[in-house]
Order: sequence, then C-alpha cells, then structure tokens
Amino acid sequence: MTCDKLAEFEPIFYPKSVAVIGASANEFKFSGRYLRTLLDFGFEGKVYPVNPRETEVAGLKAYPTVLDIPESVDFAIISVPAKIVPSVLEDCLAKGVKAVEIFTAGFSETGKEGRILEEELVKITKRGIRAIGPNCFGVYCPAGRLTLLPGADFSTESGLVALISQSGGYAQEIAREAIGSGIRFSKVISYGNACDLNEADFLEYLAQDSETRIIAAYIEGPRDGQRFMKLVQEVSKIKPVIIWKAGLTKLGARAVSSHTASLGGEEATWSAFFKQTGAVRVESKEELIDTTMAFLDLPPSTGRRVAVIGGGGGMGVTAADACSYVGLNVPTFPCEIAEQLRQVLPPAGTSTRNPVDVGAPVISPQVFQRVLEMAASAENIDTIIATQTIHLFMSGKMKGLVEAVGTLVEDSLQIPLAIGRKFGKPIIMVLPLGSTEVDSLDVEKVRREFREFYINYGIPAYPTLERAARAVAHVVRYYGSCRSPFQLGLVWIIPKRKWM
Amino acid sequence: MTCDKLAEFEPIFYPKSVAVIGASANEFKFSGRYLRTLLDFGFEGKVYPVNPRETEVAGLKAYPTVLDIPESVDFAIISVPAKIVPSVLEDCLAKGVKAVEIFTAGFSETGKEGRILEEELVKITKRGIRAIGPNCFGVYCPAGRLTLLPGADFSTESGLVALISQSGGYAQEIAREAIGSGIRFSKVISYGNACDLNEADFLEYLAQDSETRIIAAYIEGPRDGQRFMKLVQEVSKIKPVIIWKAGLTKLGARAVSSHTASLGGEEATWSAFFKQTGAVRVESKEELIDTTMAFLDLPPSTGRRVAVIGGGGGMGVTAADACSYVGLNVPTFPCEIAEQLRQVLPPAGTSTRNPVDVGAPVISPQVFQRVLEMAASAENIDTIIATQTIHLFMSGKMKGLVEAVGTLVEDSLQIPLAIGRKFGKPIIMVLPLGSTEVDSLDVEKVRREFREFYINYGIPAYPTLERAARAVAHVVRYYGSCRSPFQLGLVWIIPKRKWM
Repeated sequence: MTCDKLAEFEPIFYPKSVAVIGASANEFKFSGRYLRTLLDFGFEGKVYPVNPRETEVAGLKAYPTVLDIPESVDFAIISVPAKIVPSVLEDCLAKGVKAVEIFTAGFSETGKEGRILEEELVKITKRGIRAIGPNCFGVYCPAGRLTLLPGADFSTESGLVALISQSGGYAQEIAREAIGSGIRFSKVISYGNACDLNEADFLEYLAQDSETRIIAAYIEGPRDGQRFMKLVQEVSKIKPVIIWKAGLTKLGARAVSSHTASLGGEEATWSAFFKQTGAVRVESKEELIDTTMAFLDLPPSTGRRVAVIGGGGGMGVTAADACSYVGLNVPTFPCEIAEQLRQVLPPAGTSTRNPVDVGAPVISPQVFQRVLEMAASAENIDTIIATQTIHLFMSGKMKGLVEAVGTLVEDSLQIPLAIGRKFGKPIIMVLPLGSTEVDSLDVEKVRREFREFYINYGIPAYPTLERAARAVAHVVRYYGSCRSPFQLGLVWIIPKRKWM
Repeated sequence: MTCDKLAEFEPIFYPKSVAVIGASANEFKFSGRYLRTLLDFGFEGKVYPVNPRETEVAGLKAYPTVLDIPESVDFAIISVPAKIVPSVLEDCLAKGVKAVEIFTAGFSETGKEGRILEEELVKITKRGIRAIGPNCFGVYCPAGRLTLLPGADFSTESGLVALISQSGGYAQEIAREAIGSGIRFSKVISYGNACDLNEADFLEYLAQDSETRIIAAYIEGPRDGQRFMKLVQEVSKIKPVIIWKAGLTKLGARAVSSHTASLGGEEATWSAFFKQTGAVRVESKEELIDTTMAFLDLPPSTGRRVAVIGGGGGMGVTAADACSYVGLNVPTFPCEIAEQLRQVLPPAGTSTRNPVDVGAPVISPQVFQRVLEMAASAENIDTIIATQTIHLFMSGKMKGLVEAVGTLVEDSLQIPLAIGRKFGKPIIMVLPLGSTEVDSLDVEKVRREFREFYINYGIPAYPTLERAARAVAHVVRYYGSCRSPFQLGLVWIIPKRKWM
C-alpha cells in the first residue's frame, strides 16, 4: 500500500470549495436537488453553481463554466448530459480541480456508444484529475459535510464505519437505514462505473483512514480483481472488511452488466475469494447492517460457545437450530449451573439446559438477573444471546401483565448492562417485532426505544434470534481466524458506546 | 381418512360449556389468567370454575370438582399441578366431559418420572375422553370463541388458515403476528406433548373442516411418523400444508427432547418427507407467515416467470439473484415491450430489460402505471413483483419530493389493483422498511397503512424482495407440482379480499 492516499483523497472527502456543474434551479432535477441537498446538509466551504443559462442558482452566483470561477476549486460535482461530460471534465482539468464525482449515467452500462464516451473520460483522468463515477451518487462524509443523493437527512455525526458501494441506491439506503442500528459512517462512497477510482482505490485509502475502523462494501464486479483481492487480504488483517457480493447467479450477472457494466463472476471464484482474503461474507442489505453493528460492539474475545435465554421451548429449539446452522455452539451448562437455575425457575414448563426457557413471556427482574448471571458465570460460555419480550406486553389488553410488576421495565433494561460489565462477556439482545399491524405501532415505538437504549450502551439488538446468531457468528469467525489478533496488527474496534 | 372427525372435534372447537379446572382468582397464575382470558375473549357458552378452595372465581360460582357441576360439560381446561392431573382427568371421564386441554407441564419432557405420569394420562384417555397436551397452550377458535394463552387480544374474526403447533409460544406468537399480514385463523392448536391427540389427528380433522383452506404447522417431532406422512401427502392434494420443521440440527434435536419429548429427526429423512408429500417447507416463523399470506392471495396460475419493477440498479441485481436462488425466472422482455418502456423511462440511469430500474425512488403515477402495464402485458411474464418506496419520502426533510406531485400517493396505490384486474396476473408489492429509528416511526405508520391497503385488496406485500420472492416461489412450486390442480381435486383458495 502506498502512503500518499490520505493526501490524494483529501479534496474528495474534505474539499474547501465545490463546484456543482449543471446546477439547476429546478430541485426536481438531479442536479438541482443535489445543490439543495449540499446546502441543506450544511457544507461549510465555498459552493459555486455552474450553469451557462443562469446567473444565480439557489441564491448563489452561477458561472457559465468552471473556468469562469475566480477562485480555486477542490472538487466538482458533475451532473450534465452524458455527451458533454468529457468537455466539462476537460474544463475541470484545465481549472486545476483535483477530483470530481460524475452523477450522470448513460455510459458503459448502456452499450457500445456509452463505452466509447466513457473511454474519453478515462483518458482525461489519466492526465491528472481523479474521478468518481460516472453513474453514481457520489460521496457522503459527515466530517467534510458532503452528502450523497438524496441525503439531506443523513446524520451529520461521524462514525467508525466506511461503506463502498457500486450501487447508488444501496449506498443511500444503507446510509439511512443503518442509523437505527447505531451505525455512524466515516465515509459512504457510491462509485458506479468506476471509470477512474474503483473499489481497490477506496479500500487502500480507507485502510489508512484513521476515522474508519470497519469497512463494508456492496460489490457487483471489481474492475481489477487481482489487485482488489490482494488488498482485501491485507486490509482484513487490520480492519474487518464486510462484503456483500451481488450478481453471482446467471440472472444477477445479466442485471450487473446493464447496471454498472461489470462482470458478476462465479460462485466458486467468490467462495475462494472469501476463503483466501478473510473478508466477511454477507448476502443481503439486512445482513450487512446486522453484521456491521456486531463488529462495532463485540470484542475479539466473542466466542462460539453461546448461552441462549428466552421464553418458550419452541424458541429454544429453533434458537439451537439457528446457532447450529451458522457454526455456533450451545453447550449444556455445567451441572452446578443447571442446578442453580432449577432453584430460580419454576419446576415445569421451563428448561435449564441451554437454551434456557424461562417459561413465561414476562418474568420478574430478579429472575431475569439471576438467569443471566448464572449463564454468564458458566465456564463453558463465551457469549450470551437473550430474548426480551416485555415491550410486547406494554400496551393494549396485555398491559396488566407488565404494569402489575411496577418498576419491572427499567430494572430489566439495566440488567444486561450490569451483567455484561460484571462478567466481561458480550451480551446480545433479541427484541422481537410482535404484531406488525397499524394498530400496534405503540409496541414498535417501545421496541425501538429499548433497542436504542441497548445500542447506546454497546449491546447489539436484533429483531430475531436468527439474525443475531448470524451476526455473532461472523464476528466469531473473523477474530477466530487470527491466532493472535494483536500480533497481526489487528485493530480492535474501540466501542464508542457509553458503558465501556 | 375417516369421516367422523367433524363430530368428534366439535366439543373441542365449539363447546357449549367449559370447565376451567384449577381456576384461580390470581390472574398472574396461568389458570387465573386463562379464566380471565376466556371471559375477556367473549366465550358465549357456560363457564364453570373448578377450585376446591374457592366458592367463587371471577364472579362465577366455583365447584370443588368437575363432578360437582350440576350440568353437562363439553370441554375442560386443566391447569393443576402435574401430580393431580391424572385424578382430575379421571373425574372428567366420569363426568362425561368429551375432551380436555391440559396446560400443565412437567410430564415426559422432564424425564422418567414425568414419562410414567404421562403414561397414566394415556391410559385414561383410551377409556373414552380426548385430550390435547399436556404441556400446551390449548386451542384458539374464533368461531367457537375459545382462545389460547395469552390470547385475550386475538382477533375474534374467523379466517381460512389453521395452525397446528407443537410449541405453545409459537402458537400464540404466530396467531398474533400473522394478523398484520392479513391472516385470520379458523383454528390454532398448541398441542405440546400430544399424549392423546397429535398432529395427525388434527390434520385429519382440518382436512375435513370447511372453515380451513390452508394448513400451517410448527412441528418438532411427530408422534406417529408414518401416519403423519401419509396424511400430509393426502391432504396436500386438496389444501396446501405449510410445515416449519424444527430440531433438525444436533443442537436443535437436543432442545426438542427437553421441550416436547419428541425426536427431532434427520435432515435427509425430512428432505425426503417434503419431496414425497408435496408439503411446503418453510424454515422460520417469518417465512411461515409470509408463505401463508402468499397462498391466501395468489391464484394457482401464479407462474415462475417474474417481472421485477423497482428503483435502482443494485435492486435489480440483487432481485435477480434472489429470484434465481428460489427458482424463479426473470426473463428478458420481448423487444417491443422493452422499446415501449424505453419511451416512458429516462434514457440513462434506468433499465428496461427486467428487472426494470425506473431510475428514481419516487416516480409519477403515470410512469408507474405505464411500466406496470407493459410488464403485465408481456407474453413471457406470469407474475409481477413491484417495489414501492413513496412512504419513505412522505415525512421529514424528504417530504418535498412527494408533496410536489399532488395526488401521487392515492393514485399510485390504486395502480397495482387496476393492473392486476386488467391483466389477471398476480401482483406482489414490496414496501421496504427504510430507517428503523425511533424518530422515523411516522414512516413505519404510513408503510403499515399502505400494506394494509394492499392486503385488503388481495395483494400480498412484503418488506423485502427476498421475502416476496421466497413466498411466491412456494406458491409456484406447490401448484406447479400438480399437472392439473382441479383434476386432482385441489381446492383453490377463494380470496376473501375486496377486489376479486
């Protein structure tokens, strides 16, 4: 890895001045929307709209071309018809703009004509200007106050996760949806056709970027497979690289070619890729977000021997199945632990073996605390996954069940924090959705509040045990594959949460 | 199949009088809670609390034993300590009670002593009384105004779906959660250890039950594998049988033995089971509910050639992957359709091949209608899966996008209905969750309203394309496996929805 990446990418992520080329007063056009979005998001540098048909856009003086701007320009956003993109890029090069992002689509993804047009862009960039895109949504970097499209509502808070995405749609969806899982981003990059900068370039930069501790990626087909693979292998040793590789089926690969003009690749090739590089393989947007949350919160000591705690024997059976499918173990507790649990739980309708079935959907905080404590104290347990369902019984006709126990709710929420601290073992919470009717939105409100509470304290929370187990298994496998993480120079994600 | 099942099960699902044995004034005890639940749910027959220590429970005269009740009793609910269950069951037999459900746990699932106790129950039932349980939550039958525990809040509306569940927890969770997917139940049965009536008995009854059109089941280990298999094979020809088989891993099987004292079985055995019987195999609660919704709404003509419509090239790629994984096809449109689409969609940043990328998260109803229409008119398309994301942009900073287009929302909701009607091809909607923060609960509210709207009109709606594709594939496979569904006596689910 070269060491000049930080300086090279400075104008992309932290530009002091930005030209918006093709800026339109019509906010329903992409370029009009982008200028508005940039201003709404609070970009703090200078903004120069460029539009030969306007003298002013969104209250800012507009320039006919980028060359007419009197001051220097670090970064330009290009959103003009495909055919004139090359000449605009020439102007940017002449002006000394360091990098551009090209929103415009209609290049290699559309066929031969587009490929020729894109070739022109490649040639220009080689003469001294870096480009993201074309056919992309650009860059979101809260610390640089840049956002992608449509991202006026994105968090302005910076975080430890970077996302590289060949799809603009997924870039913005993940940036928006991951927030609820407590994920904040250092950078999100939608890079589309990658005529110049590609996934490998971004990866190289992010490996050096001190803001970034975890790298997630949505990849359709890397431009330079060999270089990408080598880099992923290197970077995985110091930062988890979580990759969602799409387009591995025949139908998917066909869609890839008309989306970003890449090659989808074959399952066997990519299986080998993941095996060799140590990258974390996920298979959906949901799994990408779930897994990122797990990496943010769980320490390298997270082990595969899991205690599962919840209400219901069916829960226990399917939880054991779910753990088993992803390679986690659910060992039987040592006799003394099972005996202690037996003293706390009712004799029938419960199970003390692991999974622990506490026998009822709502239990007292005392029982919950004792059960968690015993599970955490077991020598053969590394990690605890506990299901909590109080929120399902806090409204409607079921309210009485929880209300009568008084301070139950607050106490119950504190317990996983306290036990986690006491035993130094990671705890993962499962907070089921329950009913999804319009009428039961109040249940969802409480569930989200509980989730936010846990996540704020560094306890990942999932809607189902299957999703929790899958995310935990990724963390276990990643850290487990290094004999001694710290010897390998592995940076442990320092949790940004409140309790550690 | 014998033909007397309807009469035999009449006292279980439609009793005229119920004794609640062990009824307690303390509603935090299971038995106290059950009596309250039964009354709150609106049971219309006679209710007799039985408790030797009380003269009145919940305002009703209590009797020391069931034998002291002056009138006849159809059905008894038993919730007394395990050791006295046999004598209580003897009393019921002597009284002429036709059937009982036994909530009490602590039988064969706990070991040798419990097994001996359960054997006693088996012997008594053989002398002329039917029993559900022990170690169960009993029966929910809206038409009979019976509910299981805790089910006071269950829908009193009857529906076309029956659920058989070896787990009480899952019985009540599914009964509650499926409502949001527009599913109403004819019967839900939690049968636990199945000392007398087991999954095969219920299946036999449900096959004959005219209220029931779809049968779903959560199974850990059937009591009589051969009989169950034969029945599933027979019943599958006339009603879809959707089975979630848990406990197929080693860890899961261990949990099964301490839950319902069954045998989990092996993957190979169960793969063969599904292949031979034609039952629909699902692997989670979510998939069970998703698939049931699909069977409720989709006609036997639902075919594997799918048109996928949405915004974003990444969506297209992963949608094609998702369809491919579950065995659906996403054929390229005929040239004339692609050309027509090209005239409606912007030239760049879109795709007209299938998946169709409409290029933007919010499009005008006119464009949406034209796109759906063209997809539905394609000769090589059987089924349409369309993603709609308007709800994500109806609040917060993104509001302007939708607001400016005026009547967009209402019009857009009507379009899938109209196109479905016009072309007679099934349409499935995908309504993504978007952000899951506490702050964005308003988005979830709108999403649920849209979902309810579609479901009311017989259009199934899912949060992700992966889930939609999986559910559709189950329907395609089920009906596709019969050469001529109607010749085989297959009953097509008559949609109870508004538009057909």
